Amino acid sequence: MPVKEATVAVLGATGAVGEQILRNLEKRSFPLKDLRLLASKRSAGKKVRFNGGEVTVQEATPEAFEGVDIALFSAGGSVSEKFAPEAVKRGAVVVDNTNAFRMDPEVPLIVPEVNKEEIKHHKGIIANPNCSTIQMVVALKPLYDRFGFDRVIVSTYQAVSGSGAKAMEELNEQSRAVLEGREVVKKIMPVGKLDKHYQIAFNALPQCDVAQENGFTLEEMKMVRETKKIFGDEQIGVTATCVRVPVQRGHSESIYVELKKDFDLEEVRQALREADGVILEDDIHNQVYPTPLDSAGRDEVFVGRVRKDTVHPKGLNLWVVSDNLLKGAATNAVQIAEHLVRE
Amino acid sequence: MPVKEATVAVLGATGAVGEQILRNLEKRSFPLKDLRLLASKRSAGKKVRFNGGEVTVQEATPEAFEGVDIALFSAGGSVSEKFAPEAVKRGAVVVDNTNAFRMDPEVPLIVPEVNKEEIKHHKGIIANPNCSTIQMVVALKPLYDRFGFDRVIVSTYQAVSGSGAKAMEELNEQSRAVLEGREVVKKIMPVGKLDKHYQIAFNALPQCDVAQENGFTLEEMKMVRETKKIFGDEQIGVTATCVRVPVQRGHSESIYVELKKDFDLEEVRQALREADGVILEDDIHNQVYPTPLDSAGRDEVFVGRVRKDTVHPKGLNLWVVSDNLLKGAATNAVQIAEHLVRE
Repeated sequence: MPVKEATVAVLGATGAVGEQILRNLEKRSFPLKDLRLLASKRSAGKKVRFNGGEVTVQEATPEAFEGVDIALFSAGGSVSEKFAPEAVKRGAVVVDNTNAFRMDPEVPLIVPEVNKEEIKHHKGIIANPNCSTIQMVVALKPLYDRFGFDRVIVSTYQAVSGSGAKAMEELNEQSRAVLEGREVVKKIMPVGKLDKHYQIAFNALPQCDVAQENGFTLEEMKMVRETKKIFGDEQIGVTATCVRVPVQRGHSESIYVELKKDFDLEEVRQALREADGVILEDDIHNQVYPTPLDSAGRDEVFVGRVRKDTVHPKGLNLWVVSDNLLKGAATNAVQIAEHLVRE
Repeated sequence: MPVKEATVAVLGATGAVGEQILRNLEKRSFPLKDLRLLASKRSAGKKVRFNGGEVTVQEATPEAFEGVDIALFSAGGSVSEKFAPEAVKRGAVVVDNTNAFRMDPEVPLIVPEVNKEEIKHHKGIIANPNCSTIQMVVALKPLYDRFGFDRVIVSTYQAVSGSGAKAMEELNEQSRAVLEGREVVKKIMPVGKLDKHYQIAFNALPQCDVAQENGFTLEEMKMVRETKKIFGDEQIGVTATCVRVPVQRGHSESIYVELKKDFDLEEVRQALREADGVILEDDIHNQVYPTPLDSAGRDEVFVGRVRKDTVHPKGLNLWVVSDNLLKGAATNAVQIAEHLVRE
């Protein structure tokens, strides 16, 4: 770096996020010198379509990163821990979409709309935040800049695609079983690796990811810790309740935030309208608000239901929706890669 | 009143809530002298099963309330406005499940676990609160008594059955259409009488009921106003975001409350365990928490995910689930009727 065109490796190319990374590279006409698709041995040899042609998936090995400028990782935390040092050793910058390095003080945690100036401090690895955090901080950034805040209370409505392609199949298959009166098979949700599995079809599960000692889940604590790090402000307190709902794509969030300055709603709406990466869809009187179904396949963060609290004079309510596979993962990673190429 | 056995009329007997009222009268062996099932002219003549037999539905007319001791109304606000005065004039006590009289200062708004002592102040009409309010106040009552609070922030995950039997059919039919790749027909959700309708299958809609001038929906403002009235405490501030999710039965709520006294979590759990009408299901480390699917068909309010806020020292988080057709409507109405019979 800096480069004008980059050789890019995508690790986890056959997964739900990897697929979206490829679509994003195409859509954004990313300046590619070469594209290398990497995955586990099991997926090696598969052919994946890209820009009208086909690219063959190779097995991820340390040597596969030779000559790579930017490596986009989304194959799970343990895979990142294994291969990120190997890729960095060979001169690549890793943009990692897992939880492996996010809280590492040496690793910038980047949402370009909020803290792109931190990208340059990387030492080979840049972390992509958790999907629920990304859309929240994009929506809150213009409010932080204009009004300040130190208090956020958020409840999420998270899509199953956050748990991968198999969870999406499980939701469909369970829904079919319920509608046809067949037995419902439960194998993945809420957390594949845990013992108990519950029906997600026509249900809501107040658990995304494993429990932490304090009774919050890891997903909830990610929102707490990552928000502080991305804003570079340890004073921001976040209280999160993360819930999985029977939606395929698109996370929604009910956000309550206490601003530091007095505000009127029109100022807040104006700040959101002008904000990078935000689309304001806010007119309840004409039934205009974002929904996960409408946000699916789009790269922005959608904000609606902007309301002044009836209790606290500086309290503000927002409904924030974004495609968890795009801005919540693939789009954010590719945006970081674009910044790397530009510099 | 007082009576030992009562002649009970059920107005709206063929609706989603009316059906559950009948099941509740059966299950609780309500001391019936006579049961009269009333509905619109369209439904008159239908036969409805009750206690192993059949009861014929009669058309609701003013005269149909002659000799009735207790009339349970769940046929919509305008029907209540028309018939409640007629029933009261004929000596009946009306337990009304609509929004028609809830905020009338002459009408007690009752959740027996919270304010059953207000029942005796009725002047012929007693109001059953909104479903989302009922389950919240049942869960909060033991905390109010032991620790006090004046601040609640709630986000709901509401089942479609709150919009009636046709909404439940719409969710099933839309789900089938999505799974089979057919066109999705949108006629009811989020609010039948409004112009725009959105897909609820595999989606989340941040609108339950019509918009109010302040940008909140009526459902959200019901939670604000009714909570104050039920606790008899105008100081309680509630901020609500009400969202419809693709669940058939069972509303869930993510509740944040700031208690007035210091607490430890075990005290909170003990208060909830001992509370009337509450079942504590709280052990995230063993994946124990309530879900709407598991609460469907049950009369209690289920509480889990009890967590001490990581930010505010007196902040507490709860996940509260209950069957909106039962405790949220039919069960609460029948419980009020039981109190009337006992007195």
